[in-house]
Parts: sequence; structure tokens; C-alpha cells
Amino acid sequence: MRYEPPLQDIQFILHEVLNAPACLQSLPTFAEVDADLMHQVLDEAGKFVGEVIAPLNRSGDEVGCQFANGQVTTPPGFKAAYQAFWQAGWPALACAVEDGGQGLPGLLEAVLYEMLSAANHGWTMAPGLLHGAYECVKHHASDELKTRYLGKIATGEWLATMCLTEPQAGSDLGLVRTKAQPQADGSCRLSGTKIFISGGEHDLTDNIVHLVLARLPDAPPGPKGLSLFLSPKFMPDGARNPVHCERIEEKMGLHGSATCVMRFDEATGWIVGEPGRGLNAMFVMMNAARLHVGLQGIGLLDAAWQKADAYAKERRQMRAPVRGTSAAEADLIVEHPAMRRILDTQRAWIDGGRVLAYKTALELDVIKHHPNSKRKAEAERWCSLVTPVLKAAWTAQAFNGASDCLQVFGGHGYVREWGIEQIVRDSRVAMIYEGTNEIQAIDLLVRKVLPDGGAGLTALLQQLSDDLVCSEVADKAFQTQVTVLCDLTRQLVAASALDRQLPYWVADDYLHAVAMTLLAWAWSQIRPAVPADVQGSDAARWLLPAAALQLWILPGFAMRVQIVADRLP
Amino acid sequence: MRYEPPLQDIQFILHEVLNAPACLQSLPTFAEVDADLMHQVLDEAGKFVGEVIAPLNRSGDEVGCQFANGQVTTPPGFKAAYQAFWQAGWPALACAVEDGGQGLPGLLEAVLYEMLSAANHGWTMAPGLLHGAYECVKHHASDELKTRYLGKIATGEWLATMCLTEPQAGSDLGLVRTKAQPQADGSCRLSGTKIFISGGEHDLTDNIVHLVLARLPDAPPGPKGLSLFLSPKFMPDGARNPVHCERIEEKMGLHGSATCVMRFDEATGWIVGEPGRGLNAMFVMMNAARLHVGLQGIGLLDAAWQKADAYAKERRQMRAPVRGTSAAEADLIVEHPAMRRILDTQRAWIDGGRVLAYKTALELDVIKHHPNSKRKAEAERWCSLVTPVLKAAWTAQAFNGASDCLQVFGGHGYVREWGIEQIVRDSRVAMIYEGTNEIQAIDLLVRKVLPDGGAGLTALLQQLSDDLVCSEVADKAFQTQVTVLCDLTRQLVAASALDRQLPYWVADDYLHAVAMTLLAWAWSQIRPAVPADVQGSDAARWLLPAAALQLWILPGFAMRVQIVADRLP
Repeated sequence: MRYEPPLQDIQFILHEVLNAPACLQSLPTFAEVDADLMHQVLDEAGKFVGEVIAPLNRSGDEVGCQFANGQVTTPPGFKAAYQAFWQAGWPALACAVEDGGQGLPGLLEAVLYEMLSAANHGWTMAPGLLHGAYECVKHHASDELKTRYLGKIATGEWLATMCLTEPQAGSDLGLVRTKAQPQADGSCRLSGTKIFISGGEHDLTDNIVHLVLARLPDAPPGPKGLSLFLSPKFMPDGARNPVHCERIEEKMGLHGSATCVMRFDEATGWIVGEPGRGLNAMFVMMNAARLHVGLQGIGLLDAAWQKADAYAKERRQMRAPVRGTSAAEADLIVEHPAMRRILDTQRAWIDGGRVLAYKTALELDVIKHHPNSKRKAEAERWCSLVTPVLKAAWTAQAFNGASDCLQVFGGHGYVREWGIEQIVRDSRVAMIYEGTNEIQAIDLLVRKVLPDGGAGLTALLQQLSDDLVCSEVADKAFQTQVTVLCDLTRQLVAASALDRQLPYWVADDYLHAVAMTLLAWAWSQIRPAVPADVQGSDAARWLLPAAALQLWILPGFAMRVQIVADRLP
Repeated sequence: MRYEPPLQDIQFILHEVLNAPACLQSLPTFAEVDADLMHQVLDEAGKFVGEVIAPLNRSGDEVGCQFANGQVTTPPGFKAAYQAFWQAGWPALACAVEDGGQGLPGLLEAVLYEMLSAANHGWTMAPGLLHGAYECVKHHASDELKTRYLGKIATGEWLATMCLTEPQAGSDLGLVRTKAQPQADGSCRLSGTKIFISGGEHDLTDNIVHLVLARLPDAPPGPKGLSLFLSPKFMPDGARNPVHCERIEEKMGLHGSATCVMRFDEATGWIVGEPGRGLNAMFVMMNAARLHVGLQGIGLLDAAWQKADAYAKERRQMRAPVRGTSAAEADLIVEHPAMRRILDTQRAWIDGGRVLAYKTALELDVIKHHPNSKRKAEAERWCSLVTPVLKAAWTAQAFNGASDCLQVFGGHGYVREWGIEQIVRDSRVAMIYEGTNEIQAIDLLVRKVLPDGGAGLTALLQQLSDDLVCSEVADKAFQTQVTVLCDLTRQLVAASALDRQLPYWVADDYLHAVAMTLLAWAWSQIRPAVPADVQGSDAARWLLPAAALQLWILPGFAMRVQIVADRLP
């Protein structure tokens, strides 16, 4: 029971719901990206994911990465799969043609990574940071550095890491202590210890390019004293740079990815961007990185659903309250209401999440390539507000929903055999990395909604509501939700001006209220795209999750709003 | 950072909130169980748990049980700890004096097992089924069987198993196929495969006593064809009975407990109770068993909270919205609202859960020992209704709350080092075994609330509400909750009479609505027991969780009620 890339579902969202080819073709760069090309690329991607990557998921978990004498050995098959991956050009998919890339939309890359994460979260960590490193080097590194590294990163011939966290500096990067000592030749010597470095050491590629946050001498304390450096495992002359893996972490899951403690012992590095602007150089890729973590959530939840759905359609236990027609001595567990509910609820989150995530990926393409600055600003508003919501709410749902899917298996879910417990363990990390979900909530409310008095979010939601040709009860319910949320936002803005602590107490509930509003909007887009004449199981495919949204998810909206409102003066 | 038995908190609930010694002394059997004796027993229990059992938790997870050639080797130290445990008389705590027990209340055993599970869930699985097996053999086995086995089980010299599940028969025991072939000497030959048998094989004791559900020839299909048999690993003459462990499961957690596939190859067994009354013989212990699983939830959540609380009071990251007074470069994370909320919410569940679980244990003692049949009936009503709620809601909270506590550690929570991820993995199983949480919900609503038209639950809640001398806003809110829930129950009863499926769709939400009502009641009992003059951190100890209950837990009540109400015609 292995993950099957759900190409038909994905294409439905891309084409029927979002009309993605038309959106992309409005960007001069992608004038030739039509529906056929998208199909072709995603079909190939699905084939690669299903045939090469998915089969390595189980052994990736069971064997895991091994550490000995400073070396990391990845699980059997990981290296060959990675070589096939980069040689087929997948890392270069959304890189610019002039850098050796294929110049295709970030949207296609987003879908590729959703499927990769669903198939094998551990393996996917390896190339997961590549595109961010590519953007970072492309936009901030010197021409000399670019000549040496950009092409290798763009094609994925060399993998990259982000060396941010230190033992005393997790969510709080201002506490980073790693030192950078300038040398006469313009390079620096980096000294310090970095932890939680995914792929800090491995056997997948000939070289590894580390992007490292460190402090130059006399840099001020706090985040403004941080600069970014590029420090390779092997120097251009082939010499080993003194950056070493001290150990790898034993983790709850994600055993296919080595989480390394890295020691920089006067390792050579070169500055990327301006001194003191290290965080800025990295934040260029933050929206994309957070979107990709949200997509991991969607993918992993889909993988969990696939397993639970298949099991529920095969396993018979007890009589359902309305008996199936079968002559067997018990009914399929999919006939039991409690199981039906679990399955349909996950689908509501997955399908709605796809609409939001793919739209966000499209808007990131718009930001990069649209000629019109007003349209760009609109896209920036969308990405800035929706990304933290996708990251936090969909990674939380991935973990909780995967746990619900485990429940469908009963005792069998708790044993390794069925692979569902691996998804629960693997998915848990996505609630933590790339900014914990608590930090996403603060990012949304404190850094994005409150500073403009709620104008940005209110305008965005109001527009979604206004654009909706209201045909169904559910659409009207969504419009009411928007009114309630905008009203709450207005009150929160006023109250937060008087009480600095308030937004920190309610940020999490506020984020989830926004998530449920966006999810309701997503389904308002899906429903009219389903052909009216679908029947039987095809109709159930979309009708049951739409019903689950109303029955079991959206009642949470009123609860979240209530929790926030109770805190208002 | 090892689990510390929280004796002071436990004693506060037992003595100040529940006045347990007085309740127990109203039972003639326990006339001498006073506060001093209870203190003494629990102090010793806490010492044993903290010094002997807790230190084995980490290695129990990492080394786990090993299987080779039909033998199971438990993790280092497990056998010595078990020998110390039974030789100190702990398994015999609540067994009758005439059976070699200490004749103490089940309440004390309940507290003992809460602490044991919190300290080391895997190890505790071994003796976890003993008391149930004791009750089962005591009440249903022949005198001959009792002579041979009851004393050994009562003292724990031999451990016991429950062999129920089969590959095709999980939640649905009616599908059990294991065969029992009567022999001339009155014994039977048992043949079949049982799965998920905790402690089916191990090296802790010289013999293992299996209680096995099987079918006699010509037994009718379904649950009424099941009989219960006792089948030992070693026969009275020392011969090996052909009941063998085929393999042990690889699980998400609980590695310290061997989950065995057991093959009965014409193994000798003797019937326990009447033919066809096998389930009945086992159900004598069901309330106690489910209560104990609820207590596992409370204990594991407390263990998770202890770790997170300690970490949050040591780790500094970022400035809190209201700055601490410290001169350090960042504030303690316990000062951050999102962390405070996680910690206080768990305490609300733990402390309130203790009130309910200990009261349930007291009522089980009342059922066994009270001379007055009206009082007994009252106790039976409480246990019958509250037990499935405790089992389902508190095991769900253990898993979800432990995951929240993991979040307090950020990335450090995802690595093994801090032990918090083990609690998440270990606790997950409690939502499944001893009846999945979905089955608990059906048990509550379909089997217990609806059959008497809601009269039992309504009377119970109404009495709790009437008995409350209303002094606080929170108490009045609880009384309103009771009114809402009783009203909802009345409507559900009427609607379910017309729609058989309805209760199965809403059972889960209904159970959680009841859970939150009982939790609110529990805190209505805690609050007046806190001395009015406590100050500073002692006051915060009880005030913060009481506030968390109102702020973040009880808003879920309205949501659950709404979900149920939306389904009503």
C-alpha cells in the first residue's frame, strides 16, 4: 500500500478550479506554459515519484541515516535515486534558463514537492532546500561566488544546507554566536557550532554548499549583527574545508534525513550579501520555504488518507448502523459513521489546501514575473497573509489527521507494518521547523495583520467574498464568516493598541479562524468546478468532503472566534 | 529530567477535594483505611515508582523487547524491577486477604498504576492486566482452577494475559475463530492464532497464565458462541503447554512491552465460567480496565507536562510581550503566552481528570463493598457513564497534549534526548486498546444513555449541579452547561428513535461534550478546596489551570453541542 501520486485530483484543482495555465500565460516568461505542457511535466513527475521515490520510504525509516567517523551514509537506494533526480533535471525545474534551469513556473515545482514529500518525506529533505539556496545565491552573492556555485546548485549537482540554529539559538536567531573572522583574501574564517542541520553531511553529492549565519567582529548583538556566508564542504581546489558533522540526532521520525550537529573550525566562507543583512538575504526565500512546508502537510495528509481509505474499503468489522448489502459476516469499516467522518474530513483539508497552496505558488510566480506592479502588490499581499496560515494550519492538520487515519486501522495502525504510524512520526516535525506554528501565528497577527490596522487582510477577504457569485447555502455561510472575521479583526486592532500582550494570547486561535475561512473559500471554488452530471462514487468524491467541511470543520470557526472575543475588553 | 511522582498533588485531590478516607471508611471492609495509612502506602508507592521504575523508561524504549527462537527478552532491568515489585506485594495491593492480597481499596491501586504508567508505560503493561485476571478467575473459575492459579495471580508471582484479538477479529470479537475441543478429562484443546497479546511471552515470571476466548464445537456464531479458557504456559506437572509466541510486533512506541502473536496448537485449557458466557466473564473487569487506561492518559499527560514545564522554566528565547525582569538577553519561554497556554491547559485536564478518575475508583470500591444497594446502584450508574468518557477523552488528551508539550521544546522536542517524543509515541496506543475511543463513544451514547431515554445521565448531571453551592461565575457556567447537555440529550433521544444512524454520527461529539461538563464539575470541586490564603506560585498552581479551563477548553463545549444539534431534524 504505497503512495500513488494523485495526478487526476491535482490536475482537476490546477485546471478546473484555478485555471492555472491561463494565469501563467498572462506572465510573459511563461507564455508557452499551456495545459499540455503542465500535464506532461506532472505526469513525468508523478511517474518518477511513484516509481523511484515512494518505494524507498519504508526502508528510509527503518534503516535510516547512519553516522560513523564523521561520515553519513544515507539509506539504501537514496543515493541512486538522488542521482537520477538531478540528472533528469528535476531540481532545475523552476530555475532560470540562464542558470542552467528549465525556466518553468514555481507552481510546477510546488506540485512536484508535494508529491515527493508525500511519497518520502525523509528523502525529500535533501533537495528541499535547494531552490531556496539557489534564490539566495542568485540574488545576493558576488559574481565570483555565483560563477563557482550557482550552476551546481541550480542543477542540484551539489546539495545545499541552511546553517541557522545553534544550541542556544532556535526560534531566536538573534542569539546566534558563530563567529566570522575576515581574512586578507576577502574570505572569512567561520567558527561555531550549528545544530538541526538537515543534510549537513551525506553521501548523495560530491560537494555540499553550506549557507551559514554568523557574526563579523564588532557586529551589534541581536539579529542586526548577523551576516550570511557560503562555506563549501570541499574548497574549489579540492581541499577539505574544516566544517564537520559531529553527530546526527536520533529523532521521532524523518529517519531518512540526517539532522546534523555541524562544527565550523575556522572553516573558509565568503559573505553573501551585505554585512549585517544576513537575515534579509535569507528571507528572500521565506514565503516559498513556508509554502513548501504547508505542501508537505498536504502531501503527508493525502498519503495518510490513501492508506486509511484503502484499509477501510477492505477491512470488515461489525455491523454498520445501516447494513451494507454484503452477505459477509461483518460490514466494511468505511460504512461505519466514525470512520467515514475521519476520511471525509481529511479530504476536505487536502483538497481545499491544494487550492490555497497552488494559488499561493501561482502568486509567487506572479510576484517574480508579472509586469504590472499593482498586480504584483496584490500577489504580495496574498502570499504574505496566506503563507503562515498554510504552514501552521496544514502541518497541524497533517499530524492530527494522520493520527486520525491511524485510528482507522485500530491496533494495526500502531504497528509498523501498515506504514501509517511512520506518517504520524514524520509529519510531526513540520509543525516545528521553518518557524514553529506558534511563530507563524504571531507572524500573521502581530507582524502582518495589526501593523496596517487589519486593512490588508480585510481587503483580501472582502474581495474573495465579493467575487463569489453566491449560489449555495455554503457560499452564503462563507460570506457571513468573512463578515465575522473582519469585525473581529477590527476589534482586535483597537484592543491591541491598548494591550500589547493581547495579540500574543489569541494569535493561534486567530490563525485557525483565518484558516477555516480560507478553507471555506477554497471549497466555494471547488464546488462549481465539479461537473453537475457526475454520479455515484465520482459525485461522492467531492460531495462528501464538502459536507464534512460544513459538519465537522467549520463549527470550529465559531469556537475560535469565541475564544478571541472572550479576551476582548 | 525523569518523572517525579507528584504525591503532593495527588494527596490534595484525594484528601482535600474528594475526602477519600471518609468515603472508604463508610465501607466496612475499609474501616481502618485512614488518611495516615493512605499516605503511607502512596509514599512507598511513589518511592518505588520514582526510584525503581522511572529510571528504566528510556532504555525500555531504546532497547525494547527482543524476540528470538520463541523467547522474549525484556529490556535490561525490567526483570529485576518486576521481581522487586511482586515481592514487595504491590500486585496484591487490592486483592482480598483470603487470596493472599493486602485487602486495600482499588482506589490506592488506581493511583499506583497512574504513577507507574507515567513513569514507564511499557513496563507497566506487564502487571497491568493482573488485577483483571484476578477478578475474572476469582468470580468465574472452578475451585480447582482457583486453587492452582488464584494465589499466584493475586500475588503477581505469575503474570497473566488476555487473549482476545485475532487477525480478523479486532473490535469485533464476535468474529473470533479459535477452537476449543473438549477432552475426556474435562479440559479442552485450544487451537488458533491470537494477535496483539501484551506480555504473551516474556522472561519476567516463571509461568504465564493466558485467558483465552474460544469457541466450543457447535457454538453459535457471533459473541454468544464465545467461551473463556485458562491456558498456562507451563502445565501443573511442569510440561510446556503448546502455546507459543510466533513473533512480536514492531510498534510506534511502547517498546518495553512485547506485543505478541500467539499460536495455540492444541494447547490445554480449562473453561472459566459457563459455555457461551466468555464475554460476560471478562466484562466483570471492564470498567476497572477502562478506568486504568484513562489513568494511563492522565499519568502520561502529567509526565509530558513535567518535562515541558521544567524546560520552559529553564530555556530562554526571545523577548516575551511583557518583559521579564531578568537581565538575560532573552526571556524564559514560560513567559511567552503560547507556551503558558499549553502548560496550563494540560494541568486543567490532569487535575480535573484525577478528580474524576479517583472518584470512579472510589465508586468501584463502593460497588464491591457497600452494604446499601441504593448506594451501590448510584455508584454503578457513575462508573457505567463516566468510565467510557474518562477512557476516550483523557487518552485523546494525553496524545494531543503530549504533542503540545513536545512543541514547547521546539526542535529539541523532536529528538529523543529529552524523552518527550517517547511519551507522544507511547501514549498513542491508549486511544486504541481496551476498546477504541470511537467504541467508547458508542458505548456511552448508544448502549448507556439512549436505552433509558437519557434518564441515568440526566439524573447524574442534575445531581452534580444541584449539589453545587454556587459561589462563582464558573460554577454558574457549569450549571448552564448541565442544562444545555440535558436538553441536547432529550432531543437526541427523540431523534434517535426515528433515525437509527443518527447516534453513530454524533457519538464522538456527544462524549466530548460530556467530558467537558464533567471536567467543569471536577474544577468546581477543586476550587473551594484551595486554601484562600495561598499566594504567589502556590496560588498560580491552581488558578492558572482553572483559568485555562474557562479560556481554552470549555469553548469546545459549545462547538461539540453545535455539531450534534446541527444533525438533529
